[in-house]
Amino acid sequence: MSGVSVRRLEERDWPAVWSFMEPVIRSGETYPYAMDMDDAGARYMWLEVTEAAYVAVDEDGSIVGSYYIKPNQPTLGAHVANCGYLVSEAARGKGVATTMGQHSLEEAVRLGYRAMQFNLVVATNAASKRVWEKIGFDVVGVLPGAFKHASLGYVDAYVMYKVLVDE
Amino acid sequence: MSGVSVRRLEERDWPAVWSFMEPVIRSGETYPYAMDMDDAGARYMWLEVTEAAYVAVDEDGSIVGSYYIKPNQPTLGAHVANCGYLVSEAARGKGVATTMGQHSLEEAVRLGYRAMQFNLVVATNAASKRVWEKIGFDVVGVLPGAFKHASLGYVDAYVMYKVLVDE
Repeated sequence: MSGVSVRRLEERDWPAVWSFMEPVIRSGETYPYAMDMDDAGARYMWLEVTEAAYVAVDEDGSIVGSYYIKPNQPTLGAHVANCGYLVSEAARGKGVATTMGQHSLEEAVRLGYRAMQFNLVVATNAASKRVWEKIGFDVVGVLPGAFKHASLGYVDAYVMYKVLVDE
Repeated sequence: MSGVSVRRLEERDWPAVWSFMEPVIRSGETYPYAMDMDDAGARYMWLEVTEAAYVAVDEDGSIVGSYYIKPNQPTLGAHVANCGYLVSEAARGKGVATTMGQHSLEEAVRLGYRAMQFNLVVATNAASKRVWEKIGFDVVGVLPGAFKHASLGYVDAYVMYKVLVDE
């Protein structure tokens, strides 16, 4: 999406982020969180147990996406980053996820991570898988029936991974 | 190991479990936890954030192993179990892990889980992979360099998975 920039999330951004996060969580189609998760629970998950969070801002100054970055495992696995991404309904299909994905890879390197891993990319979310493959992730594993989709029932999920260091 | 039985971990069992857990954590060879994790941190990880914990007891009444079971993901991924297992140094190679693994699969079914997943089976821990394959797990993914081994540096890890339901 031309004109979209990414910056650190500030406290005043949260209501805008929650406004497009809430319907995603309520849908139960892409994230494993409880479909009735409230604002406080979401804030904890997105801001408190993460290393950093960011927002994508369009040319008009509207917040159109957000992502977090955190270690995927404790200490001896903490060099692998995990991220979660959200794009507002209105801004879908315009490359915002790709922009955030590329930004997150650069941030991960800057923060000292050596790889990035997504643990549960829902197989029915084809657009998401396509974006991650476009920016260099591989599906390294398929988890049969690992996600309980709100309308489709148990569906497969992918483990996706990208090495960030040359060695 | 003939004569080994598995039962729920009781509060009085913890010192025995910690006695063989501590050297495993200190070694930094198989679990990602901080190598200087203390008794309280280990207790939290093994007993507080899990659904249940168990011990393996030999014919003499000695505790020779322990495992926990918990959901591997939040709500919409909570039907997949995750377990962690430990065998005391003195009881290695006698089938204790296999006995606990089989017990955990039965417990997982009884508790309503539909599958079991291990997120970070360290590739250099060949004995562990062999045990899980013996009881029906598949390596569904390889994570390049995902574990920082205390003496070997960055080594690969496996994602292992076993479906528990017939459908």
